[in-house]
Amino acid sequence: MEPRNFLTIEGGEGAGKTTLIDGLARTLTARGVRVMTTREPGGIPIAEQIRSVILDQGNTAMEARTEALLYAAARRQHLTEKVIPALAEGMFVICDRFVDSSLAYQGHARGLGMEEIWSINRFAIEDTMPQLTLWLDISPEEGLSRIHQGTGREINRLDLEGLSFHRLVREGYEKLQAQNPERIVRLNAECAPEVLLSDSISIIMERFKGLFANDVKL
Amino acid sequence: MEPRNFLTIEGGEGAGKTTLIDGLARTLTARGVRVMTTREPGGIPIAEQIRSVILDQGNTAMEARTEALLYAAARRQHLTEKVIPALAEGMFVICDRFVDSSLAYQGHARGLGMEEIWSINRFAIEDTMPQLTLWLDISPEEGLSRIHQGTGREINRLDLEGLSFHRLVREGYEKLQAQNPERIVRLNAECAPEVLLSDSISIIMERFKGLFANDVKL
Repeated sequence: MEPRNFLTIEGGEGAGKTTLIDGLARTLTARGVRVMTTREPGGIPIAEQIRSVILDQGNTAMEARTEALLYAAARRQHLTEKVIPALAEGMFVICDRFVDSSLAYQGHARGLGMEEIWSINRFAIEDTMPQLTLWLDISPEEGLSRIHQGTGREINRLDLEGLSFHRLVREGYEKLQAQNPERIVRLNAECAPEVLLSDSISIIMERFKGLFANDVKL
Repeated sequence: MEPRNFLTIEGGEGAGKTTLIDGLARTLTARGVRVMTTREPGGIPIAEQIRSVILDQGNTAMEARTEALLYAAARRQHLTEKVIPALAEGMFVICDRFVDSSLAYQGHARGLGMEEIWSINRFAIEDTMPQLTLWLDISPEEGLSRIHQGTGREINRLDLEGLSFHRLVREGYEKLQAQNPERIVRLNAECAPEVLLSDSISIIMERFKGLFANDVKL
């Protein structure tokens, strides 16, 4: 396969993924790069149907492994119907969350095991891994306080339970970064959005060499 | 885990699985065994929902690996909601098709690879494997002719394409039996249903020792 222009953005709640992705899309597009931003299920009907089974409020009996297999199925369909065709057309694809989310959330934080979650995701994605993953690292406390900004609501017991879960998620990302130091770059997501964006652009320019040059020729 | 009273029935189309399962259930029940017969998705709402995504005629874009992951998800849910609780209650569970079907049909005949299909199914079932699997082996030609019995329709081109597929399915079962000679017992499904039933009962008596004795005590 050709070098892939495939970037994924990872991180806990409130880390600023959406803001960063918007900024990246605007900046790269302005520099002549053809960008596609997406996130699972990404408007793919089969993946949307699978997602609706996962999110069905009536499905309280859903077992954790069933859910993990459904996420992997939706990922497979989104990847083959949307991501791979865009990569084949030479687009620069930015995906909001990918396998690392399943590994950190379900594998580590929910305790299903990273190896186990990797086994079904390897089946789902085959060799289509992102060339670069930006991990927006934020302390769970700061992430939580950002989510609550504007709501005016006090932090309650459920939030605090959430806090220990999000500590585990962060620990999961730490492990992944240690295992994949080349692919996964940790960024301090507690700094200003402008700093996060310009740091990200620098890393992208370094990792995807020729990205801007190629597109200027078009 | 306790010794499992878990039996699966496998085989190609027209092999007579339904007839055998009905006969087994009647005979074992008459001998005092508490029997549950089932097949995926087995009336489990989540598994039925997943199945309806797989069978949705509109989902022509469904990729083979997406489908395999969905089957594994439905299997997981059926197993945890229906099979495992019945086994835990001491019932003798007979399941019409289980992992071997995915391995033979999707892994071997559809060409996804048995190892690959096994990796996601191992995640789905963990250590809940049947203690015994009866493989009703029939030549694809004989199976096809049985399916056509009563319809009066002649065998057409599509049937013949189906024939080469079912030859591959049979080959898949052959491989599985060679890899699992203890668990999988091959039965000649071309003989009379009565012979198949009595042979099956003999094997079950031998493999599930104490099954009848235990239940007589109840």
